[in-house]
Amino acid sequence: MACAQSSCDCDVGSSEMERLRAESRKYTFSPDFTWDGVRVERYKSENGGWSGISRMILAGYSEKVAFHLRYFEVAPGGYSSLEKHVHSHVVVGVRGKGRVIVGEECWDVGFMDVIYISPGTPHQLVNAGPEPFGFLCLVDAERDRPSPLTSEEIERLRRNPAICRIIQSGLGEPAG
Amino acid sequence: MACAQSSCDCDVGSSEMERLRAESRKYTFSPDFTWDGVRVERYKSENGGWSGISRMILAGYSEKVAFHLRYFEVAPGGYSSLEKHVHSHVVVGVRGKGRVIVGEECWDVGFMDVIYISPGTPHQLVNAGPEPFGFLCLVDAERDRPSPLTSEEIERLRRNPAICRIIQSGLGEPAG
Repeated sequence: MACAQSSCDCDVGSSEMERLRAESRKYTFSPDFTWDGVRVERYKSENGGWSGISRMILAGYSEKVAFHLRYFEVAPGGYSSLEKHVHSHVVVGVRGKGRVIVGEECWDVGFMDVIYISPGTPHQLVNAGPEPFGFLCLVDAERDRPSPLTSEEIERLRRNPAICRIIQSGLGEPAG
Repeated sequence: MACAQSSCDCDVGSSEMERLRAESRKYTFSPDFTWDGVRVERYKSENGGWSGISRMILAGYSEKVAFHLRYFEVAPGGYSSLEKHVHSHVVVGVRGKGRVIVGEECWDVGFMDVIYISPGTPHQLVNAGPEPFGFLCLVDAERDRPSPLTSEEIERLRRNPAICRIIQSGLGEPAG
């Protein structure tokens, strides 16, 4: 599945929709952080926008709900797109240790920490440890596509020392 | 907060709405399965409809999302309402071991198992171990109120041996 815009928002094809049934069901979890019957979508880095990310769709693409539940995993050294959009994110830490840039702030994300990213807020999730960093990400089913930040927005974030240390902007070398 | 109908669906008062801000924020998790800044709502059993349940609202009651994310915890021996409704549930196991009745089926719920309960399907979550059974429960923000099952529906479920062993119907003694 190719997706040029973002690490977390791609169209799902019709065959994928068929695979996912709208009947009651259980996806059984495995200790390697996969789910029986759920395909692992491995992303390739494009244009430096993100790195080392996989996605699993756990609910919402065919089920009768107004939201999508996805599990993302970021490899050591990896990061999600630095982006903004009108829709909100709810992120729940599940595996490993991460950091999240949320506007002008930067927070640790550990097991079961719950992050709310409000509309329009620039954000990026970064693996902050030696293990994979996995998190649940909840979004509205109906949502806008993410937009990259402008160079001016990125430069403003880079002037914040806490953010500068972890930001991965795809503009030149990572800071720090 | 009183709620006579169900173990998982109560109105949230205006003061609760004020407490929850719609700005980006982090709820930090504690190893005792509480979140800094999130109130634990402890339910009392009413009419045998449910037992030993607490709820924490993690997202959606004031945030700009189309869903609600809640953490429920069922004490050893406890169970949720046996109910049905038009809206769907997505349940993610987080702590301990549970079992869920979903229509005519009964599934184990362990760590990170993902259960989808489709519209209209009778369901009940039961603690199946000696530790607290905790799970994330996702629902649409706009949803109908749960309804109890009819006596006829309960009796039909009781005729299923796998369900009969765990069902808690509030009609006489628990089976098994």
